[in-house]
Amino acid sequence: MFMNPLLPPLWPMIATAVETETEIAPLVLAGVLLSLVVIYFASKLGGEVCLRLNLPPVLGELVGGVLVGVSALKLLLFPEGGLAPEDSLVIQLLMGSADLSPEAAQSVFSAQSEVISVISELGVIILLFEIGLESNLKELIRVGPQAAIVAVVGVVTPFSLGTIGLMTIFGVAAIPAIFAGAALTATSIGITAKVLAEINRLSSNEGQIIIGAAVLDDILGIIVLAVVGSLVKTGEIQISNIIYLILSATGFVVGSILIGRLLSPFYVSLVNRMKTRGQLLLVSICVAFVLSYIAQIVQLEAILGSFAAGLILAETEKREDLEEQILPLADFFVPVFFVCVGAKTDVSVLNPAVPANREGLIIAAFLILVAIVGKVVTGFTLFGKSELNKLAIGVGMIPRGEVGLVFAGVGAASGALDPATDAAIIVMVIVTTFVAPPWLRAVFEGAKKEEAPEKPVPTPD
Amino acid sequence: MFMNPLLPPLWPMIATAVETETEIAPLVLAGVLLSLVVIYFASKLGGEVCLRLNLPPVLGELVGGVLVGVSALKLLLFPEGGLAPEDSLVIQLLMGSADLSPEAAQSVFSAQSEVISVISELGVIILLFEIGLESNLKELIRVGPQAAIVAVVGVVTPFSLGTIGLMTIFGVAAIPAIFAGAALTATSIGITAKVLAEINRLSSNEGQIIIGAAVLDDILGIIVLAVVGSLVKTGEIQISNIIYLILSATGFVVGSILIGRLLSPFYVSLVNRMKTRGQLLLVSICVAFVLSYIAQIVQLEAILGSFAAGLILAETEKREDLEEQILPLADFFVPVFFVCVGAKTDVSVLNPAVPANREGLIIAAFLILVAIVGKVVTGFTLFGKSELNKLAIGVGMIPRGEVGLVFAGVGAASGALDPATDAAIIVMVIVTTFVAPPWLRAVFEGAKKEEAPEKPVPTPD
Repeated sequence: MFMNPLLPPLWPMIATAVETETEIAPLVLAGVLLSLVVIYFASKLGGEVCLRLNLPPVLGELVGGVLVGVSALKLLLFPEGGLAPEDSLVIQLLMGSADLSPEAAQSVFSAQSEVISVISELGVIILLFEIGLESNLKELIRVGPQAAIVAVVGVVTPFSLGTIGLMTIFGVAAIPAIFAGAALTATSIGITAKVLAEINRLSSNEGQIIIGAAVLDDILGIIVLAVVGSLVKTGEIQISNIIYLILSATGFVVGSILIGRLLSPFYVSLVNRMKTRGQLLLVSICVAFVLSYIAQIVQLEAILGSFAAGLILAETEKREDLEEQILPLADFFVPVFFVCVGAKTDVSVLNPAVPANREGLIIAAFLILVAIVGKVVTGFTLFGKSELNKLAIGVGMIPRGEVGLVFAGVGAASGALDPATDAAIIVMVIVTTFVAPPWLRAVFEGAKKEEAPEKPVPTPD
Repeated sequence: MFMNPLLPPLWPMIATAVETETEIAPLVLAGVLLSLVVIYFASKLGGEVCLRLNLPPVLGELVGGVLVGVSALKLLLFPEGGLAPEDSLVIQLLMGSADLSPEAAQSVFSAQSEVISVISELGVIILLFEIGLESNLKELIRVGPQAAIVAVVGVVTPFSLGTIGLMTIFGVAAIPAIFAGAALTATSIGITAKVLAEINRLSSNEGQIIIGAAVLDDILGIIVLAVVGSLVKTGEIQISNIIYLILSATGFVVGSILIGRLLSPFYVSLVNRMKTRGQLLLVSICVAFVLSYIAQIVQLEAILGSFAAGLILAETEKREDLEEQILPLADFFVPVFFVCVGAKTDVSVLNPAVPANREGLIIAAFLILVAIVGKVVTGFTLFGKSELNKLAIGVGMIPRGEVGLVFAGVGAASGALDPATDAAIIVMVIVTTFVAPPWLRAVFEGAKKEEAPEKPVPTPD
């Protein structure tokens, strides 16, 4: 039994004495439970529909998120966009069913959103841990040079095309143009990796190049954001900070893998000596969380840490057991991430009937073109690798996902972007994110069909 | 890549524009990651040590929680006790390693604690779902009358002994005596169920009686808290509210099981028709969360809802698959609950060297005696059931756990309890909670040894 402030006779009396924390706690729990039910409903509805339309289920989770989020049903809202608690249907339901007072609604709304946001971030951390586990370190190192080419080309091309195009064609000022160009560089490793996993192409040559390039893009994205940020702030580029970021990124990736491989026999023997329930899962999760924490405090991203942890533990004899045990955990956490990305996306900027949207939509059309072309070309820069599906590599780099939304959010908040350019970035993010999953799948399946004639009598599997 | 305010050059600039929410989010995530690592470390250290001492691992998780909590290392703290962010070592580490400013420390501390608290509550919800899945509804109904006797005797005996004893022996006033008596009635279903599961006795006759009685105790506890609360507040008992609570409890338990059984064919066919990953787990989790939500808004406890969901789904053909998939999820969530219970317990009240503790310790000695005797007798009220291990049933009802702490917290906050009586209740909770798990295990193992001579040549299994 928990402290239950819903009990009418006792609680008003002690409400003054007990801190607000304790008082609203059960309502926060109720809000989280409702939000999770909404999230799972949206993810499964979208996922199942997309699967039947032969589209990637993760696209359905994103669309499901849009459906329950700020754009449509407003069941799953976050206070970030300046939204009031009353805008959220979950909070309204709590006010109707659980006597939530309007005064407490703000605290419950922000606490509940905080919890859901952290669960969603744990979701992408666990997803990248799973992707790391399914990846092959040797293979990644082998395709490293190719991944590096893809990553660098995929950053330089859209950035320069976008910035120059905006300045020359649309007459946008230098700072917002550079910012929009920077937003074009990102790749959402989460969305791409999930699609690759869904179509069983994660461990293919193309899959490993895409994953490697997306990880490098993540690091490059951090550096680009720092460069653009310091440019916006001081008008000049702070070299020392860029050097620091490059060193910390290199140090973290190389260091964690080297130290991780040294320590992994200790990990195996520790797990083998433990006898209580869940020992393998929890020790492994701790490795992932510690590396995520370190990645974050050296100013990288938490997901780089969990990806590195997955790579390291995949080299041990525990890989298969761990892959099996991480499945239900990923099933629980990962949809929260994708649905939240969808729920936070305001698709109303796509409506051409609103005159204010039109300028943004025209800029957006240009950004989308650059975003797609700038990434699709990357695969074709891998000269002399005719066995690779080069189109698939480029298409795999297209989705901007949550990364692009971060750029748009930071840009709008810093005042560097005018509303039209900001909206254009959001539209570009939406289109690339939603177009890439079915396209990537189609590219791989098209390639399979081309190969098909070579084996006219397929054996049943 | 997430928005990372740890980046020095960009973020100070936009700190004024971006809301606090967004600004501190990565620090909250970092704090949650560190806290979870601390929790898993404590749970596994304690669990492994206890297992080797032939004590129940869950006891180790509680002790591990005490070790990292407010009583000792202060790694895992919660703001409820009026603690400052600087008291928490995790927050100090964040301030040292991630440039957390003292001003933002309060927000990060409370947000991080909120998230960990909700994860811990999800932990006990998932635990009770798992216990429900492993229980047998028919068996529970069969032992229902016996469980009801155990529950009622286990509430009436310690309540009356405690209240009368405190008033006559210690001269405590009526209101605090009644409050302390009420605190003696609770049973921590979580701790008992976990021990039973650990020693594979959950589905035994005794196990099912204990679970049934503990669930009824949970409902009775809510009613007792409401009665005592209205008594403290108005000096009289509000009959209408008690009737409402009894009706809503009965309605919820009977209603959810009847409606659940009607709907379960629909659940099975829905899961069978779904094709995306994690469909069984997520649909089932939604059933559990919806019932938890309903239980909470009808002023019961969320865990009653998830237990009912487990019972209902255990009747379907999906039981075995679900039991398997829920395991890693429970491994992840449940330790958070037990470690947090330990971490929130301030064992400094146990120190007899502090003169202020002595009065409380003397009252505590009396309360412990009543707490143990009042529950141990319950098994022996089941006349004519010689095949039952009656001592085990009584011992299974002893741990007060988090429920007792709630009474102590509410009592202290309402001003109904003086510090000595409040401390005495906390000591009683600690002792009953920590004594019951090894005792319960010993009672069952003792019984097994007595039976042993009958099969002198055990077949190897």
